[in-house]
Amino acid sequence: MVAAAEFDRLRVVLVNTRNPLNIGASARAMSNFGFSNLRVVKPYEPGFREAKSAVGAAGLLKNAETFDSVAQAVADCTLVVATTAARRRNLQHGVKRLEDGARLIRRRLKSSRVAILFGSEKSGLSNEEMSHADWLMHIPTSQQNFSMNLGQAVAVCLYELIRDAKAPRGTEKVTAASADEIERITQMLLEALHASGYVGRRRVADIDERMRRLVKRLHVPARDTVLWLGILHQINWKLHKGGPPEDQTDM
Amino acid sequence: MVAAAEFDRLRVVLVNTRNPLNIGASARAMSNFGFSNLRVVKPYEPGFREAKSAVGAAGLLKNAETFDSVAQAVADCTLVVATTAARRRNLQHGVKRLEDGARLIRRRLKSSRVAILFGSEKSGLSNEEMSHADWLMHIPTSQQNFSMNLGQAVAVCLYELIRDAKAPRGTEKVTAASADEIERITQMLLEALHASGYVGRRRVADIDERMRRLVKRLHVPARDTVLWLGILHQINWKLHKGGPPEDQTDM
Repeated sequence: MVAAAEFDRLRVVLVNTRNPLNIGASARAMSNFGFSNLRVVKPYEPGFREAKSAVGAAGLLKNAETFDSVAQAVADCTLVVATTAARRRNLQHGVKRLEDGARLIRRRLKSSRVAILFGSEKSGLSNEEMSHADWLMHIPTSQQNFSMNLGQAVAVCLYELIRDAKAPRGTEKVTAASADEIERITQMLLEALHASGYVGRRRVADIDERMRRLVKRLHVPARDTVLWLGILHQINWKLHKGGPPEDQTDM
Repeated sequence: MVAAAEFDRLRVVLVNTRNPLNIGASARAMSNFGFSNLRVVKPYEPGFREAKSAVGAAGLLKNAETFDSVAQAVADCTLVVATTAARRRNLQHGVKRLEDGARLIRRRLKSSRVAILFGSEKSGLSNEEMSHADWLMHIPTSQQNFSMNLGQAVAVCLYELIRDAKAPRGTEKVTAASADEIERITQMLLEALHASGYVGRRRVADIDERMRRLVKRLHVPARDTVLWLGILHQINWKLHKGGPPEDQTDM
């Protein structure tokens, strides 16, 4: 995970964006992932600051800086990365996959500013615009449909930046029920099988072991054992209260 | 990278989506990352198939399946994952970070179908809708603005799935029961709870959801479902045969 100061060193640069909603969507994704510095080069629609899709990012959009050229927009950055959807061979530039590119960007953000360029919805970045970049970064999209929506491309690139494989795992560890609790559940289940006539009907010799294995395969969480015991207790109570076991020959 | 057959096993399920453009944007992201099976539950706008933002994904959108409930939309899946923006503590479900959740999804896709649920733009997924999920997955967004645009959330989740984690690929030995089978077990258990007086005694409003989650936490193996259904069937038969439900005030 990048630190706050490192987030502040990133510049998201949208070049020749046509639809102001896409600027808004990009701003929203930046806000979602904790980035705040948006730069816009020659937008088609000067009214982009009112873009409605910038939920939660109105301030960010208001503070966006506007430039007349890519050169000006990246002047204070030590690393400039151009995004590209195409998987094309580019002889002028190295092309890196997003995963690899993001790693280099994160490293650079520790000490200085980095710009990521996104081209227009229609034609992407021109050769002139790309020439300001140190290298190209492409999102590994399908060859059948490689052209991403601008807001989605920004979201995916920024997600990769904040993504951290080594982050503390949010996975909650489920504590399994103890063998003792499993055995109590098994015994109560066996009682229900007898009381309901399930066992008598089948006459399986090793029913106890079978049921124990069946219950074990459930991996009952420890937190749920009291609930399951209560349910089985109630079912057994009702099965017994309903009358003595009856002849099952009518089944 | 997941293989073609594995891509085909994923179901992207959009629940109560309000804006058809968001369905179109989700379809486009699916197409970008090589997924093709879209399911829509009760969309606000039946005309979603004409969504204009589905550049390159018109066929995918046309083939989208529509359902009346989450239960129906996930019935043929063995793993159901609900996405959530909030970082809230959820006591009913485990919550996994996207990176970790995607790893588990990829693993499951090797052998069976997986559904990923996305809630409405306005309110996300309801508790009832979430109760159909095995666990929750959240995109690690900023606490200041955690609510993502739907199309961007879909793009980021799918990107994480196709992202090459280089992690050793383990295969799951146990095939899990499908959502449909879990639902049948849940319904039969609920019947037993009513017939035994367990429910009437407690008067819990959301008993259906609680029980569904309780059963899901068991991770019932597919091979055991017939046995469990048979046991519950017998218990229910006996509970009903034992006489009409009696007043539990003596408990």
